[in-house]
Amino acid sequence: MLQGANMSYLGQREPERYGTTTAAELDAMMATAAAERHVDLEIFYTHLEGLAIDRIYRALDEGMDGLLMNPAGFQYAGHALRDCLLGVRPRLPYVEVHITHRCITGGLHTVTAEACAGLVLGFGIDSYVMGLDGLLRLLTRRRD
Amino acid sequence: MLQGANMSYLGQREPERYGTTTAAELDAMMATAAAERHVDLEIFYTHLEGLAIDRIYRALDEGMDGLLMNPAGFQYAGHALRDCLLGVRPRLPYVEVHITHRCITGGLHTVTAEACAGLVLGFGIDSYVMGLDGLLRLLTRRRD
Amino acid sequence: MLQGANMSYLGQREPERYGTTTAAELDAMMATAAAERHVDLEIFYTHLEGLAIDRIYRALDEGMDGLLMNPAGFQYAGHALRDCLLGVRPRLPYVEVHITHRCITGGLHTVTAEACAGLVLGFGIDSYVMGLDGLLRLLTRRRD
Amino acid sequence: MLQGANMSYLGQREPERYGTTTAAELDAMMATAAAERHVDLEIFYTHLEGLAIDRIYRALDEGMDGLLMNPAGFQYAGHALRDCLLGVRPRLPYVEVHITHRCITGGLHTVTAEACAGLVLGFGIDSYVMGLDGLLRLLTRRRD
Amino acid sequence: MLQGANMSYLGQREPERYGTTTAAELDAMMATAAAERHVDLEIFYTHLEGLAIDRIYRALDEGMDGLLMNPAGFQYAGHALRDCLLGVRPRLPYVEVHITHRCITGGLHTVTAEACAGLVLGFGIDSYVMGLDGLLRLLTRRRD
Amino acid sequence: MLQGANMSYLGQREPERYGTTTAAELDAMMATAAAERHVDLEIFYTHLEGLAIDRIYRALDEGMDGLLMNPAGFQYAGHALRDCLLGVRPRLPYVEVHITHRCITGGLHTVTAEACAGLVLGFGIDSYVMGLDGLLRLLTRRRD
Amino acid sequence: MLQGANMSYLGQREPERYGTTTAAELDAMMATAAAERHVDLEIFYTHLEGLAIDRIYRALDEGMDGLLMNPAGFQYAGHALRDCLLGVRPRLPYVEVHITHRCITGGLHTVTAEACAGLVLGFGIDSYVMGLDGLLRLLTRRRD
Amino acid sequence: MLQGANMSYLGQREPERYGTTTAAELDAMMATAAAERHVDLEIFYTHLEGLAIDRIYRALDEGMDGLLMNPAGFQYAGHALRDCLLGVRPRLPYVEVHITHRCITGGLHTVTAEACAGLVLGFGIDSYVMGLDGLLRLLTRRRD
Amino acid sequence: MLQGANMSYLGQREPERYGTTTAAELDAMMATAAAERHVDLEIFYTHLEGLAIDRIYRALDEGMDGLLMNPAGFQYAGHALRDCLLGVRPRLPYVEVHITHRCITGGLHTVTAEACAGLVLGFGIDSYVMGLDGLLRLLTRRRD
Amino acid sequence: MLQGANMSYLGQREPERYGTTTAAELDAMMATAAAERHVDLEIFYTHLEGLAIDRIYRALDEGMDGLLMNPAGFQYAGHALRDCLLGVRPRLPYVEVHITHRCITGGLHTVTAEACAGLVLGFGIDSYVMGLDGLLRLLTRRRD
Amino acid sequence: MLQGANMSYLGQREPERYGTTTAAELDAMMATAAAERHVDLEIFYTHLEGLAIDRIYRALDEGMDGLLMNPAGFQYAGHALRDCLLGVRPRLPYVEVHITHRCITGGLHTVTAEACAGLVLGFGIDSYVMGLDGLLRLLTRRRD
Amino acid sequence: MLQGANMSYLGQREPERYGTTTAAELDAMMATAAAERHVDLEIFYTHLEGLAIDRIYRALDEGMDGLLMNPAGFQYAGHALRDCLLGVRPRLPYVEVHITHRCITGGLHTVTAEACAGLVLGFGIDSYVMGLDGLLRLLTRRRD
Repeated sequence: MLQGANMSYLGQREPERYGTTTAAELDAMMATAAAERHVDLEIFYTHLEGLAIDRIYRALDEGMDGLLMNPAGFQYAGHALRDCLLGVRPRLPYVEVHITHRCITGGLHTVTAEACAGLVLGFGIDSYVMGLDGLLRLLTRRRD
Repeated sequence: MLQGANMSYLGQREPERYGTTTAAELDAMMATAAAERHVDLEIFYTHLEGLAIDRIYRALDEGMDGLLMNPAGFQYAGHALRDCLLGVRPRLPYVEVHITHRCITGGLHTVTAEACAGLVLGFGIDSYVMGLDGLLRLLTRRRD
Repeated sequence: MLQGANMSYLGQREPERYGTTTAAELDAMMATAAAERHVDLEIFYTHLEGLAIDRIYRALDEGMDGLLMNPAGFQYAGHALRDCLLGVRPRLPYVEVHITHRCITGGLHTVTAEACAGLVLGFGIDSYVMGLDGLLRLLTRRRD
Repeated sequence: MLQGANMSYLGQREPERYGTTTAAELDAMMATAAAERHVDLEIFYTHLEGLAIDRIYRALDEGMDGLLMNPAGFQYAGHALRDCLLGVRPRLPYVEVHITHRCITGGLHTVTAEACAGLVLGFGIDSYVMGLDGLLRLLTRRRD
Repeated sequence: MLQGANMSYLGQREPERYGTTTAAELDAMMATAAAERHVDLEIFYTHLEGLAIDRIYRALDEGMDGLLMNPAGFQYAGHALRDCLLGVRPRLPYVEVHITHRCITGGLHTVTAEACAGLVLGFGIDSYVMGLDGLLRLLTRRRD
Repeated sequence: MLQGANMSYLGQREPERYGTTTAAELDAMMATAAAERHVDLEIFYTHLEGLAIDRIYRALDEGMDGLLMNPAGFQYAGHALRDCLLGVRPRLPYVEVHITHRCITGGLHTVTAEACAGLVLGFGIDSYVMGLDGLLRLLTRRRD
Repeated sequence: MLQGANMSYLGQREPERYGTTTAAELDAMMATAAAERHVDLEIFYTHLEGLAIDRIYRALDEGMDGLLMNPAGFQYAGHALRDCLLGVRPRLPYVEVHITHRCITGGLHTVTAEACAGLVLGFGIDSYVMGLDGLLRLLTRRRD
Repeated sequence: MLQGANMSYLGQREPERYGTTTAAELDAMMATAAAERHVDLEIFYTHLEGLAIDRIYRALDEGMDGLLMNPAGFQYAGHALRDCLLGVRPRLPYVEVHITHRCITGGLHTVTAEACAGLVLGFGIDSYVMGLDGLLRLLTRRRD
Repeated sequence: MLQGANMSYLGQREPERYGTTTAAELDAMMATAAAERHVDLEIFYTHLEGLAIDRIYRALDEGMDGLLMNPAGFQYAGHALRDCLLGVRPRLPYVEVHITHRCITGGLHTVTAEACAGLVLGFGIDSYVMGLDGLLRLLTRRRD
Repeated sequence: MLQGANMSYLGQREPERYGTTTAAELDAMMATAAAERHVDLEIFYTHLEGLAIDRIYRALDEGMDGLLMNPAGFQYAGHALRDCLLGVRPRLPYVEVHITHRCITGGLHTVTAEACAGLVLGFGIDSYVMGLDGLLRLLTRRRD
Repeated sequence: MLQGANMSYLGQREPERYGTTTAAELDAMMATAAAERHVDLEIFYTHLEGLAIDRIYRALDEGMDGLLMNPAGFQYAGHALRDCLLGVRPRLPYVEVHITHRCITGGLHTVTAEACAGLVLGFGIDSYVMGLDGLLRLLTRRRD
Repeated sequence: MLQGANMSYLGQREPERYGTTTAAELDAMMATAAAERHVDLEIFYTHLEGLAIDRIYRALDEGMDGLLMNPAGFQYAGHALRDCLLGVRPRLPYVEVHITHRCITGGLHTVTAEACAGLVLGFGIDSYVMGLDGLLRLLTRRRD
């Protein structure tokens, strides 16, 4: 799971929009959800698009199965990240999540979504768990 | 649950894109999912945007709790449907689902999404169950 | 008088924008206004653009003199309705009414207005009576 | 009542479009209409947007109740006038009138309409009387 | 053969543009043309896009060979109809006809044409017979 | 009949799109079709827009009755050709033909079509014979 | 002859672009040119679009034959002036002149030109005399 | 210092946006600021773009050193004013001030800024004093 | 003097727009005008943009002084011609003429005008003589 | 104070545009200005948008009062930075400065300005001191 | 090697932009380069797009291996040429060269580049030799 | 030589598009090419635009002669990088290379190319060697 630019300040940045759950609470929630589903989950935060790209290539080398990401601040101009996601797509399916549905107001403002396998948005902090479930479903279907 | 224009032909229309599950199989799948979650689910198919609008207003009168919809053919020019959804929004939260993520290729091609509370797309036929789960989560959070 | 998509829910849909007058109250108000002006008035509600088109052609066959319409949900993509209105224009002058002036915010969002003889908007529920008066004036001037 | 740029030549400028009623005849017609409705009406003509702005601020100081205006030549680029109208809006409701419905052909070509409370167009010279009636209705509703 | 919105009023709506042939006369002409070519032809009129979609799916079930359609009022915003046509395309080739070449003035104003196999326009009422001939040619070539 | 830029290489250029019929075979096919219909047909190939213009003006001087043309390479930027076609239009009706319906994919990419009386496209090599038939129908109707 | 906004500073404003001839010298030059051609010429300078409109209507009342104008600062947003020119067009032909051809660089930046009978630009200060000659030619042709 | 259209109503027009300082109080504040800086300051208010242009050319004749202006209502369509500012630029440096940063919301809405030497916005009524300081700095640097 | 695509048919192509003067009559008129002004004038007609380019380069070699051209059909897409005109500009000033002012309706539709020294349009057939006079004035000024 | 991408090379990059003051000289100048105003000022240079975001969140944690920034290279696509600035806005007011007014030439080319409280541009190196003064004024007004 | 419109005047047209090497010198340079590389090179100049198309089809018939072209004046509107290049692409790889990188200033202004295998630009007259080397590399790789 | 975002994964990311040569093999190939040409070459990979900017400024300090770069993922939104390249342009000429000609499909998708001296694209992995040759030619010409 990858958290894009600005996400480390979750719960403090515009709480009336993004909720009061902090990044630490979200991490705990996701760790629990992963444990319940018997899957390994690693979480990585960065404000730097280049480090996100680097992390994704390493994930491929480490044999990870899928990517759950909230691109956050990368959603507007993260073209290099999108190219990276397109490049790893056949081997590393990507599910994009957003807390609010703000990114579809007045057109779609996320270039990374062009490279996603699935998209979940608008369910608040629950979007993450739903995205995780969706990713597992995709991996299961693929295996069948 | 509302199925928009062209959905009754699911499984027969472009199966390489939308899968081979038929409308009847989808209905059975959703009935099971609803039963497992102990919720009542009614399914309505129509090619006519006006009948969809009519059904939604009646749902309000019948005291239904939420709406799960794949707008399908209504997604491009369903402005009247969108206005209807905006009008009932506070009382009837709406979750939009799509089988593929085709509607976000080259910009967002769904006007009804402007009125959604949540959006789930790209998980094939599983998008429906995920959308149902998301709707239940929204209703639960609201009740808290 | 023709009421477009979503109008049957007047008074219940976004009352802070469209007022609390219900469709039934509006109908009564217009019946009174018509009686005071000694004209026959028939009111037709539909969410279906095709039925609106059908009703207008029949109005022509029945020898009606004019059309008062709030296109409501048809205003965004009602191109077929607009073509119909253009086709009957010389014989059935059309006055378009809107309760709020929302459809002129950020450009004009009503394709049916291209075919109108007159337009009245922004006077709340009074827009209907003013539109009726305007239609009668047009018919009177034409007869002179 | 304010008449924008070019209106003093009413009846002489493109009469096949705007009719043969002259500015003087219109003034007389409106004076009669005002008298019948027991309201005071003052009429001001100007080709200069700045003088229109000046007149509107003075109207506020004089305690006038509302503004009826055909922006005419100011409708295309009268942004300063529009700002003025927006500034006085809460106290001086503005009704915009047009003789023809030419300004809605191929999109809306009137920036001042963004600041109007109501709009009446397409009824020829009768648009003025209808606009006056609409303004009185707005003032009455407000007082209730 | 499918006739879209407004076509039942052929001959009465803007005859200077669409000619004076009525819908009944056109039907007779096409019945004769079909008989001369030894093919079965069924004609369906509707103002409702949803019913057109429904009729097309049934045509597939009934084993029809091709579709001749003048989308008329559906040409501007008939995206759901277009999706339907794309869905049945491999089995039900579609030929679009227009009486005038008005729909190519200032760009192409027909979304359904994206899904057509062939297009014939501008030959007045003869466009229908030519479209039928074209459809038969396509079916013949395909069989070879 | 006029064949625009690139048409002399028919059958060799992208045969999977334009078919394997060569220019010579097409000419023979059209000669036969013309003979069957008892009309004189002259065929002219050019890659030069100016020569096409020149040929059309001479056709007028020679008393020809109509023009059948596949603009091919001229369709994108042949504005001078279009002006020529507009200039001779009343006396020399023009029918435009295309082998595929590629020129309507993603908007209409043919400026010469603005000047056509009729348009036939998408029927493969048969588009030419259909265009010839359409031209004869137009000439017959005109004579009536 | 009417000189638009900023023209009174001719010769002092950006002389490397507009030349060093002053407004006074231009007036003298035009007076001489008018005398040589035996026509009466009146020159009016204003920075106020409304006064330009006013002057033109008065010119009509005074029986003037034509208008020569450099719109200068009015060329960008002088829509009211353009409407005025369109209104008087049949009786008061208008020739627009510009010193440089700057207003056609990167598209045409003059809304008043929409209402002109003729346009002369790029000949420096000589554009005025050429415009006068053009206006006289138009008036002569019209009289024939 | 020049105050554009609508500025004389400062403090009364939308005080929640522009503050409650009146034009008179602003003038006093600026007079004090000028005195403290030992510079002469003249203030001119107008709703008429043409008079603003006129005032600027006269400022040049009077030997003034610089211009401080809030274009206000002229900012949207003041192209003639912008041309004037460009014309006097080398001799009369222009600093533009705005009370709020509203004119940069959703793109830049001020054509006069194209001709400014410096811009100060968003500091409320303090923008004026800061603009004056900036103008003095520019004049000082130029002299060095 | 160069006459672009379609000009050889002057007087026969849309005479209600371009007048009834034929190409031969225009040539005679220009020969007379040249003789009266004691200048040599050569006239060249072509429908081929490449030949126009060729002729212009030769004109340079022959020591001609200037170019008078009605680009006609080349005005829309004559980018190669425009590049040629830009290339010879310092030595061969170019004056563009048009019979009507049609090319400025709805924006400027002439790419060759980007390379002109002067432009004359809208004076009917007189535009040519005026263009010649303008060219002579430019040459005279240059010599001074 | 934050200096965006490319700013560390100030004085060496295009000195004819940005002046010859080096980054070190600017830092010294700002340190002096801060000392004179009795405020603490910390300066941070980075070419990495992500580090700028990180620094801003830390500034919040450290209890800083405001932010002065020249976004420089971040101004075109710094959407993540803008989201960060929007998120901290209520607590950390942001003043944007630019050395030249180049970023407003041909529209506004700075997305970070959407999140600024104030903007100062065009005063060369003095823009920084003016921006500091403006920030202090904003903080003072807020405290009152 | 094909040289497009205006190239025969190389060295004389805007030498400050395109250099002083003449067409003859370039030809000699390329002949030498071809000889050094032991390949046959034929050079063809034309201002006529149609002749360029014709030459390319003949090159195919003659069994040539590749095409090196500076489209020059054809780059803006050479759509027919582009279609030709697309048609011969599998057999005749095309390398496009430009002397300057002017065609990528403010977007890409060359439609023929859509059909190129490789592109070399900005190296002055050396772009031709580099393009030749690139073409040979492409042919060599293909043969492997 | 600088390799932009995603380039370190060359040979593994979409090999059907970018070939199977790995980054290590490319480095070896370039080292050999540099040795053959007797020039020093340093290669730098980064996913971070800011580090690329930093490296370029240091290259200037180290006295390097030129820059060869494949911007890769930076090509879409690397405006800060482009500003950096523009800033060092006079002293550090920049040659941009691309493996495929994908970045010119449907318009030019590389903002960094605005700052290049030369561009080479479409020759697969050979583009790098050709770009190196081009850079050396530019440096040689400059020295002459």
